[in-house]
Amino acid sequence: MKIAVLPGDGIGTEIVAEAVKVLNTLGLDLQMEQALVGGAAYEVHGHPLPESTLKLAQESDAILFGAVGDWKYDKLDRPLRPEQAILGLRKHLGLFANFRPAICYEELVGASSLKPELIAGLDILIIRELTGDIYFGQPRGRRIATDGHFPGTEEAFDTMRYSRPEIERIAHVAFQAARKRSKKVTSVDKANVLETFQFWKDVVTEVAKEYPDVALEHMYVDNAAMQLVKKPKAFDVLFTGNMFGDILSDEASMLTGSIGMLPSASLNAKGQGLYEPSHGSAPDIAGQGIANPLATILSAAMMLRFSLNQAEAADRIEAAVKDVLAAGYRTADIWSEGTKRVSTREMGDAVVAAI
Amino acid sequence: MKIAVLPGDGIGTEIVAEAVKVLNTLGLDLQMEQALVGGAAYEVHGHPLPESTLKLAQESDAILFGAVGDWKYDKLDRPLRPEQAILGLRKHLGLFANFRPAICYEELVGASSLKPELIAGLDILIIRELTGDIYFGQPRGRRIATDGHFPGTEEAFDTMRYSRPEIERIAHVAFQAARKRSKKVTSVDKANVLETFQFWKDVVTEVAKEYPDVALEHMYVDNAAMQLVKKPKAFDVLFTGNMFGDILSDEASMLTGSIGMLPSASLNAKGQGLYEPSHGSAPDIAGQGIANPLATILSAAMMLRFSLNQAEAADRIEAAVKDVLAAGYRTADIWSEGTKRVSTREMGDAVVAAI
Ligand SMILES: CC(C)[C@H](C(=O)O)[C@@H](O)C(=O)O
Ligand SMILES: CC(C)[C@H](C(=O)O)[C@@H](O)C(=O)O
Repeated sequence: MKIAVLPGDGIGTEIVAEAVKVLNTLGLDLQMEQALVGGAAYEVHGHPLPESTLKLAQESDAILFGAVGDWKYDKLDRPLRPEQAILGLRKHLGLFANFRPAICYEELVGASSLKPELIAGLDILIIRELTGDIYFGQPRGRRIATDGHFPGTEEAFDTMRYSRPEIERIAHVAFQAARKRSKKVTSVDKANVLETFQFWKDVVTEVAKEYPDVALEHMYVDNAAMQLVKKPKAFDVLFTGNMFGDILSDEASMLTGSIGMLPSASLNAKGQGLYEPSHGSAPDIAGQGIANPLATILSAAMMLRFSLNQAEAADRIEAAVKDVLAAGYRTADIWSEGTKRVSTREMGDAVVAAI
Repeated sequence: MKIAVLPGDGIGTEIVAEAVKVLNTLGLDLQMEQALVGGAAYEVHGHPLPESTLKLAQESDAILFGAVGDWKYDKLDRPLRPEQAILGLRKHLGLFANFRPAICYEELVGASSLKPELIAGLDILIIRELTGDIYFGQPRGRRIATDGHFPGTEEAFDTMRYSRPEIERIAHVAFQAARKRSKKVTSVDKANVLETFQFWKDVVTEVAKEYPDVALEHMYVDNAAMQLVKKPKAFDVLFTGNMFGDILSDEASMLTGSIGMLPSASLNAKGQGLYEPSHGSAPDIAGQGIANPLATILSAAMMLRFSLNQAEAADRIEAAVKDVLAAGYRTADIWSEGTKRVSTREMGDAVVAAI
């Protein structure tokens, strides 16, 4: 079982090191190979996703990814910026199915912005399509407008698009995931304005016929952004496209108060997957040894379960994380009065010890 | 001063009636003419925005709008659905500048999903561009894909676009509004992925040079969706495009706990404006006389200030609303133990009495 380990930038190296440490204690035959990605790769190879890193990723069963990005790369041309690495990996590996659990950990209820009664026990699974939509649609660029409000002036444009098979395959993913949960899917669209999402709604409705045991509801994206705030526990599987998923999954993660704890998986049709924390590279706290490694450690558990067929090992990691939380270990981001504040490394060590 | 009064569907007729009653008590020379719009217009004229209604709107100084939409029109072809009326009015009147205050009323702090300390005193002004972006971009439709992941299959597509003058004019609106407030603008984009919003960021940065006294910050839309939850009071003027504005303004309104209280204005270059509550037509409670008319009454105040040059009359309405809240009057949506529950009409009467 080959794993590409891509720590990236900012806190990425620190949190991935802890996840690797945890993986190494499981006694599995894991072949881990590390490579540069993002700004770190740009510094050395002049590109955020060098050929060698892409090749390693393609040849691996799974990718353990830290985070990319730093303000210092803001002035680079877009194709050279760190985040192009993650977009490139999604595209080249065809990682169309993004799973982002938004869970509120019991011990962290108080860390949420929301009132405890609204989020205690929250457990939403966000399924976001990840290789289509306006992220990759062509044509896009700048040109002189020939119509619109100001013909003859400079304009920029992008193309939103989804084809029927693209919607069908991610819809199957959503309905199958719902079968293993509360059998309810909320498909989020903007069918009242967009052709792309009227089509999305139509195709999802058709696919739903194959899952009569799963309840399907449709919701406009603006309403979903409100309902997440008003009554988050009304969601179970929240299913949407790439652009809306970007926004709603971040909103939902932050609502939980547990964002430092939330893993994510991005899978392709072959079961290869990229696993990364839901949070970013946090350049403001990089190098201080205070970042929370648990989201990355839990991403490693998702990797074992989804791409490496090691469900039991995944269970062991998840149980260990529960144990260290119950024992009161907290990194700075989730610390509160009466708990033990620990460093990134100490948190990793605690998980290893609990395993 | 001519006002087109367009109550629309659902609770629209009930809440607009109260706003009209309030306007009539001010002793101003207002010529109000009523017309059908949305589902109500479709029933009578076969179209949600009949020629006669559009003409009335175009010939008026301002439009007082209720709300449109009802589930029973969900099966209609898109061009006939109620929400096309509001899109049509925006387009035909060129109402490009949308102002949506997200204010937390002191008396309603407890009604928010957020912890009181996070939202007490919240006062964000959202400025959303309203006639460009993916809402109106051409081409759009369905076709057979010629490239992408599945060439040869059916796909749907839309075009996102902004021209330089479109961005410039709304940026001036945002910076000028910020001058009258805390002199800070947060421009929300997705420049890391979209050509349109890299251009948006570039043009906004240029326009900012004319406002050296206003601080400009840029934020990605996914991060904005998170920061609204985490630290909403860090925002003052939140400025963005049509699609992101749709999502973020609804998220922000709901966060306040005061959504039944929030007005909005949509202005064109001539100062004509459409004024409507931030909430929708709420067909589930229509006809029961329990809807909150205050957002519409406050929209009427905005109308007096922005389009009719009657700032003093606007002040009188706003002061009266503060008074009725302080006196404990509450419709069902904002009622809490120890306050007086009143109907839509009683709330309108209370505002009239306070004036
Ligand atoms: C870094 C960026 C391109 C990316 C996205 O927009 O998809 C990120 O926000 C995410 O959600 O993984
Ligand atoms: C009804 C709909 C077309 C509209 C929009 O998307 O703009 C609404 O959500 C709004 O925000 O005014």
